[in-house]
Amino acid sequence: MNITVWNEYRHEKENPVVTDIYPEGIHTCIAEFLEGDDHVVKTATLDEEEHGLTDEVLANTDVLVWWGHKAHDEVKDEVAEKVKQRVLDGMGLVVLHSGHFSKVFKKLMGTSCDLKWREADDRERMWVVDPTHPITEGLGEYIEIEKEEMYGEHFDIPAPDELVFLSWFEGGEVFRSGATFKRGRGKVFYFRPGHETYPTYYHKDVQKVIQNGVKWANNEGTPKNVYGNSQPLEDISEK
Amino acid sequence: MNITVWNEYRHEKENPVVTDIYPEGIHTCIAEFLEGDDHVVKTATLDEEEHGLTDEVLANTDVLVWWGHKAHDEVKDEVAEKVKQRVLDGMGLVVLHSGHFSKVFKKLMGTSCDLKWREADDRERMWVVDPTHPITEGLGEYIEIEKEEMYGEHFDIPAPDELVFLSWFEGGEVFRSGATFKRGRGKVFYFRPGHETYPTYYHKDVQKVIQNGVKWANNEGTPKNVYGNSQPLEDISEK
Amino acid sequence: MNITVWNEYRHEKENPVVTDIYPEGIHTCIAEFLEGDDHVVKTATLDEEEHGLTDEVLANTDVLVWWGHKAHDEVKDEVAEKVKQRVLDGMGLVVLHSGHFSKVFKKLMGTSCDLKWREADDRERMWVVDPTHPITEGLGEYIEIEKEEMYGEHFDIPAPDELVFLSWFEGGEVFRSGATFKRGRGKVFYFRPGHETYPTYYHKDVQKVIQNGVKWANNEGTPKNVYGNSQPLEDISEK
Amino acid sequence: MNITVWNEYRHEKENPVVTDIYPEGIHTCIAEFLEGDDHVVKTATLDEEEHGLTDEVLANTDVLVWWGHKAHDEVKDEVAEKVKQRVLDGMGLVVLHSGHFSKVFKKLMGTSCDLKWREADDRERMWVVDPTHPITEGLGEYIEIEKEEMYGEHFDIPAPDELVFLSWFEGGEVFRSGATFKRGRGKVFYFRPGHETYPTYYHKDVQKVIQNGVKWANNEGTPKNVYGNSQPLEDISEK
Repeated sequence: MNITVWNEYRHEKENPVVTDIYPEGIHTCIAEFLEGDDHVVKTATLDEEEHGLTDEVLANTDVLVWWGHKAHDEVKDEVAEKVKQRVLDGMGLVVLHSGHFSKVFKKLMGTSCDLKWREADDRERMWVVDPTHPITEGLGEYIEIEKEEMYGEHFDIPAPDELVFLSWFEGGEVFRSGATFKRGRGKVFYFRPGHETYPTYYHKDVQKVIQNGVKWANNEGTPKNVYGNSQPLEDISEK
Repeated sequence: MNITVWNEYRHEKENPVVTDIYPEGIHTCIAEFLEGDDHVVKTATLDEEEHGLTDEVLANTDVLVWWGHKAHDEVKDEVAEKVKQRVLDGMGLVVLHSGHFSKVFKKLMGTSCDLKWREADDRERMWVVDPTHPITEGLGEYIEIEKEEMYGEHFDIPAPDELVFLSWFEGGEVFRSGATFKRGRGKVFYFRPGHETYPTYYHKDVQKVIQNGVKWANNEGTPKNVYGNSQPLEDISEK
Repeated sequence: MNITVWNEYRHEKENPVVTDIYPEGIHTCIAEFLEGDDHVVKTATLDEEEHGLTDEVLANTDVLVWWGHKAHDEVKDEVAEKVKQRVLDGMGLVVLHSGHFSKVFKKLMGTSCDLKWREADDRERMWVVDPTHPITEGLGEYIEIEKEEMYGEHFDIPAPDELVFLSWFEGGEVFRSGATFKRGRGKVFYFRPGHETYPTYYHKDVQKVIQNGVKWANNEGTPKNVYGNSQPLEDISEK
Repeated sequence: MNITVWNEYRHEKENPVVTDIYPEGIHTCIAEFLEGDDHVVKTATLDEEEHGLTDEVLANTDVLVWWGHKAHDEVKDEVAEKVKQRVLDGMGLVVLHSGHFSKVFKKLMGTSCDLKWREADDRERMWVVDPTHPITEGLGEYIEIEKEEMYGEHFDIPAPDELVFLSWFEGGEVFRSGATFKRGRGKVFYFRPGHETYPTYYHKDVQKVIQNGVKWANNEGTPKNVYGNSQPLEDISEK
């Protein structure tokens, strides 16, 4: 499996708090815990040419992981459109945290993807609500994160195909924190945690979920579809 | 309820076969069978200014019915975007037949919305697969249409929230012909039949479904959401 | 619409705390706020003959509301089975609170319907996660209940057809508190609140949800199905 | 993975047509094409003691495949109940063809599971409608079966979690032929084809689907749930 981890990579260069936590960028941290088995893991970032997402990179990516926040608007429309098309053609997509507002995710969802939020060190407890789901393999009944940004309902997404995690926040809110969506031949997993000012991506259970999510999103060879004008398969001539 | 029936209104002016069937346009035919009860039904067409879909018209529309085919590209992007936003804000949308390829529907679905098709006078039999659904009120177990254009799977849409009708076609194909989708505060119903060269919109059961669909799609006052930065509802100060 | 409110009616006779809150039984309280419009509302209780659910009562019930808790086992199997069959045949069912463990609900779900619980005066905040749903008509973004029994995930139900409410509890849990399920021609709405030691059914928003739920569950005439050996609808003789 | 293939094994002993096709029983045919990789495949049949499904066999089965037809009633209630509980506890279940009417499947669905049927050598064409699903790996856009028993809608099941295949039948019907359901910690796949008088289980694509289905249904270690009275995870003492 070929994995590409995409990161906006701005907070880490501009905010010392974030630099301390992720000195080589969130993408490098994520790439490291995704390595292993037969995975080839590469990274790409906003300020590279074509945001590091050339046709060749996309064609050779089985699953793309996406982290973005403050610079969604700087992602070129044509790149966002190419990524979306590649998902429809079978590439898996794991969208993390503030990636809910990325051009790619909004295009795939068709909704505003808006939500409530607060940066106030809320405790988060993420409950498994689908204990059949391979994304929950190896977890307990919930994941607890000591401090995180709050995301609250209403989360303006289509009803997910599968709802995997629900979050409880100390300040009184709930959130659909893990959700899957099929689009074309591609599988999309949205996973909430990962605000840049917290060391969330070092949390073992969070890592486990992303490892599982990438594995789940990988399309190993389902049917390709033919569209357009189509000859009858049965005789309809004698009407 | 305020209903607006939108039609591209081109085939009827250019193809005598279609003119004979719908002399005053498909929109007029549909508007007529939607009248009654307390409904106010208006129409709008592509060649009117702003395609007949001004801010005022949209603000005063509870449910929009959409028929388009050969001129999807002529619908201005800003109008398509406004219609989409109005759906997310609570307007119902009933998309008919070749409207599957309209800008509005594709934006709301996030997929290509592509399919197989054939104009060969196939017989269509549309089976009810959800006999709890209010859209099926008053129907029998299936609707039979003597001749129609074939639409076949794979239909590249997200898994519908509710699958209501499945079509059988004489030439050997099947199709998810009636499907509902929630987007934001808006309800969307896609309904397959209605190729312009057949008198499908005079079929009593087809009319019944569209009447039911409009009624179902009408949002009578569900909660408005507040998004963005949000104060805690519980005390989190003593951490 | 003919509504029957069924109640176990035991706590109210045995526990003075409950008697004080619901002196004439939970069923009477619920029946009162369901009256109005063209509704005919009746009640039935466990200790009546056939638990008040004779064939005639069931045949004349469009929507059944169910509250039970400590005496689920005393409901006769044949009555539970008859109620289930009537749901499959089109009767709506609104299952409240501890009714999650009733024979009828478990038969319709096929799962254990188990959950976590605690009686400790938790505050509950029930968030609307589906703001298109008619069951949420007239509500705000959430319903707050000062003190309630806690119900927590994992709730062992099939993935609901529609998830309407999610609860936050003070003690750290979440719960899928409002969920819809279609079974046969019947519509089922599970709604969490209503522990007998709290005055929950006097809460205006809780009443509104149950009123909306009953209206939603009413099947106004969808297709009846024919099953079994079936003649071909198309000629298959010349193979 | 430990697989057990269960078969009623009656038609093969009583009807020479079936004996000719499956001389060692349908279970043996299925077991043979499921062998390989690290799978251990065993069989069990109705006339064995406890129908071959002792506690030990069930405890050591990861995925159970079920074929039954004329003797559903002879399956003991307590065995059916044990199998159901084992599914809720994580065992995968692949239900084939007339197994739709088995006690186990009906208990898990909560509906009648009724349908239309006809034995008239209809041609069946099973279309893939979910080209992301691992159960469709290695297939084309449809599977064609020259002659099969017809199963037609309405199929009285809950709306599936995932709809994978839709069948077209020569006589004019359609059917939801491949559908998945999650129940408790168990995954259930219903797959339509396989009437005993046709050599359907020698069809390479049918075999591929069952191989994929077994692999999909295998639960490799998702969370076990704790139910019942539960201590608060957050401090609620100072209210």
